[in-house]
Amino acid sequence: MNTHQAFLDAIAITLPELSVKTDSESCTHWGRDWTVHFQSNCQAVLFPKTTEEVATIVRLANEHRTPLVPSGGRTGLSAAAVAAQGEVVVSFDKMNNIGKFYAADRIVEVEAGVVTKALQEFAESQDLYYAVDFASSGSSQIGGNIGTNAGGIKVIRYGMTRNQILGLTVVTGKGDVLNLNGGMLKNATGYDLRHLFIGAEGTLGFVTKALIKLEKPPVNLTAMVLGVPDFDSIVALLDKFGKALTLTAFEFFDQIAVDKVIDAGHTKAPFDSQTPFYVLLEFEAVSDEVLETAMAVFESAAEAGLIVDGVMSQSIAQLQELWKLRECISETISVFTPYKNDISVLISHLGDFIADIEAVVKENYPDFEICWFGHIGDGNLHLNILKPATLSKEEFFAKCQTVNAFVFETVKKYHGSISAEHGVGMTKKPYLHYSRSPEEIAYMKAIKAAFDPNGIINSGKIFD
Amino acid sequence: MNTHQAFLDAIAITLPELSVKTDSESCTHWGRDWTVHFQSNCQAVLFPKTTEEVATIVRLANEHRTPLVPSGGRTGLSAAAVAAQGEVVVSFDKMNNIGKFYAADRIVEVEAGVVTKALQEFAESQDLYYAVDFASSGSSQIGGNIGTNAGGIKVIRYGMTRNQILGLTVVTGKGDVLNLNGGMLKNATGYDLRHLFIGAEGTLGFVTKALIKLEKPPVNLTAMVLGVPDFDSIVALLDKFGKALTLTAFEFFDQIAVDKVIDAGHTKAPFDSQTPFYVLLEFEAVSDEVLETAMAVFESAAEAGLIVDGVMSQSIAQLQELWKLRECISETISVFTPYKNDISVLISHLGDFIADIEAVVKENYPDFEICWFGHIGDGNLHLNILKPATLSKEEFFAKCQTVNAFVFETVKKYHGSISAEHGVGMTKKPYLHYSRSPEEIAYMKAIKAAFDPNGIINSGKIFD
Repeated sequence: MNTHQAFLDAIAITLPELSVKTDSESCTHWGRDWTVHFQSNCQAVLFPKTTEEVATIVRLANEHRTPLVPSGGRTGLSAAAVAAQGEVVVSFDKMNNIGKFYAADRIVEVEAGVVTKALQEFAESQDLYYAVDFASSGSSQIGGNIGTNAGGIKVIRYGMTRNQILGLTVVTGKGDVLNLNGGMLKNATGYDLRHLFIGAEGTLGFVTKALIKLEKPPVNLTAMVLGVPDFDSIVALLDKFGKALTLTAFEFFDQIAVDKVIDAGHTKAPFDSQTPFYVLLEFEAVSDEVLETAMAVFESAAEAGLIVDGVMSQSIAQLQELWKLRECISETISVFTPYKNDISVLISHLGDFIADIEAVVKENYPDFEICWFGHIGDGNLHLNILKPATLSKEEFFAKCQTVNAFVFETVKKYHGSISAEHGVGMTKKPYLHYSRSPEEIAYMKAIKAAFDPNGIINSGKIFD
Repeated sequence: MNTHQAFLDAIAITLPELSVKTDSESCTHWGRDWTVHFQSNCQAVLFPKTTEEVATIVRLANEHRTPLVPSGGRTGLSAAAVAAQGEVVVSFDKMNNIGKFYAADRIVEVEAGVVTKALQEFAESQDLYYAVDFASSGSSQIGGNIGTNAGGIKVIRYGMTRNQILGLTVVTGKGDVLNLNGGMLKNATGYDLRHLFIGAEGTLGFVTKALIKLEKPPVNLTAMVLGVPDFDSIVALLDKFGKALTLTAFEFFDQIAVDKVIDAGHTKAPFDSQTPFYVLLEFEAVSDEVLETAMAVFESAAEAGLIVDGVMSQSIAQLQELWKLRECISETISVFTPYKNDISVLISHLGDFIADIEAVVKENYPDFEICWFGHIGDGNLHLNILKPATLSKEEFFAKCQTVNAFVFETVKKYHGSISAEHGVGMTKKPYLHYSRSPEEIAYMKAIKAAFDPNGIINSGKIFD
């Protein structure tokens, strides 16, 4: 007998057409995301097709006090979409329609289950551009992107998911359907509840639809890869290039990352010189004059000793080849079962932050190899510590727990974020206090109580 | 004896250095904004110098149940900063320091009382740009801009005030000091309370400081003024130019507005042709190729009959002269004591919206002259009905109240906003339900209760 049988019986009566799965394979499949540390204990999976069905599910769940967990593309990295506590999962797989397109506004209405890549392709079909892009865009769903306010590689130019969301339809934890902001760029009529739902990791209610702003497509994207002598040079280059060009990306990685990517055969070295750090920057070369400006900045920066060596893409093929240096890092280092962390601090503090972490790791774990890369133009670092071959996975991760505490202490020292773009979910819940004060957490809980007084929707995520 | 004497006595004991004014002239001056319909009934004005002093004021106000109203540059147009109900005013005039500048992040910390223009000038001194600009920038304060999420003329390129705010320090209605988001571009650690305070019109607490993102300055700004045959052509031109260029502004106005501005001697006609509507668009002519693109779009649009006549600025002086056609409208028509409204709908609905309003006004009030202008690229219309000389001010405004109801009904029909950028305050409070549902308003009230359970801070604004 299912723990939530009475609820499921009510669902069967009220929504007889609703697709429901209760077999253990389905419960495992839809009951978890990409995180490995939490197991699914999902009791059933529901597949609504409309906002009204979602609202009915939430109202019945309130009557039966049945806890619900949202499920999108299940690509999350913080266990925000894991049904670990015996919840019923609400999957958005059957709400994947791309709806009305408002050409004059460049706004399209999509259901929460639309896959990121499908939206990117729709935008292309309209000679427009959906600016949010990241490794999992082939699987991740828009609803999940909104829940974590997904970022990715173009944030420096287009902002986070938040910046593209001009309207939301949500079903709150109380079962109310709210149509928030209606697609408007300007709307000064009280609290912007839309922004409260973006990044709430599904804890206030379910996002069922969104009105999404599309952008003018970028023109003649051109990349430079620069070898730089030290971390401070990266920050100086960001300032110089950032003032001269409208950058569409500004990424960095270290020599360790480059070595691993090249050893794995993904691409070749960008040039002969080897340097501690590399920058990959990208801009729209809309004219020869812009290219000349880029070259002039390059030359003056090289003269000033900020650049040791560099290369600029001359074609789309070269652009893609240069991007491999950055995009293949995660996959390449995954064989070293790395300890990973996704943090952010002000760009002004990045140099000191990295030095602090390096010093402690080198002192206490001299055999640990740190691989740094990330969206430096956004202050977002991906810290990866590679497992030495001499250590077992268990020994390594045990030691990394000590490192973890130090990393978060250092984040706190620089007033940074313990989660730049992956969310809190369950994996970072114990560490939330490093980035948010007790008062902030208390207000978050009060807001949760206002939207979901019975704690029906994704409770136990972000905070207890 | 002051109604709030016990509170003021407590202030005098706890904050003996605090500047306090209770004379009626000061109470009138600091107790109201630019709206004319509400009188100040302010009982005292306090001038804190630090966040800590603000927090102390709020804690004492809670003890004494003394209601407080924030006061910035007092340029508001919705009476959100009017102490109409005998409140004590907290002015931010003495919190006007521009603080630490984080060059690598292009972020500057400012106190809430910094005047918009002072921030613009600071940005210029750093070879950067503060992108929020509007008519009252010489008086408006950053705290007030944040309270109403101020927009202005560059929203199409840079977004609203919200988009520039990377961190906030606030004192909540309970007296808690919150440091929100710390300047980070990426921070996925739970609800983004910063966005709740932006646009809250000071009803959840006082904003005392902000971390503000500055932009790369625009290069070689170039404007076109285009005479167009009908409203639909404006929308078609927005699409064409918007796909070809990165626009920094896209404004419209009608022949009535142009006539009034020229009659008043502010500038001359842009060209010989007269057309029902005009577009003023602006872009960065970063290269000759961009100028050629702009000209090519112009020519193809003219061939397609979307443009009757046009002119492009060839110098800064010409750019400024063309802008007068748009910027002088408000001042010019003020002598006609216009009925004004600031609304927004999707760009896709603007044509139908305008036709609906025109039809009803023409049928019922054939002697009324409507002057349309606004930030069309943002879906933001300024509707102005000019008083016929034959009507007294009282008769005219009485008739306009009937128009008002129809305007808001039409906004609701198109799911638009009754206040695009001026806020709700007290002037639009009775009409909030045209843009926000009863459920939304109930959640707003619950949030207000969480941050300000005693209703100390700017209560009676936005909703009752």
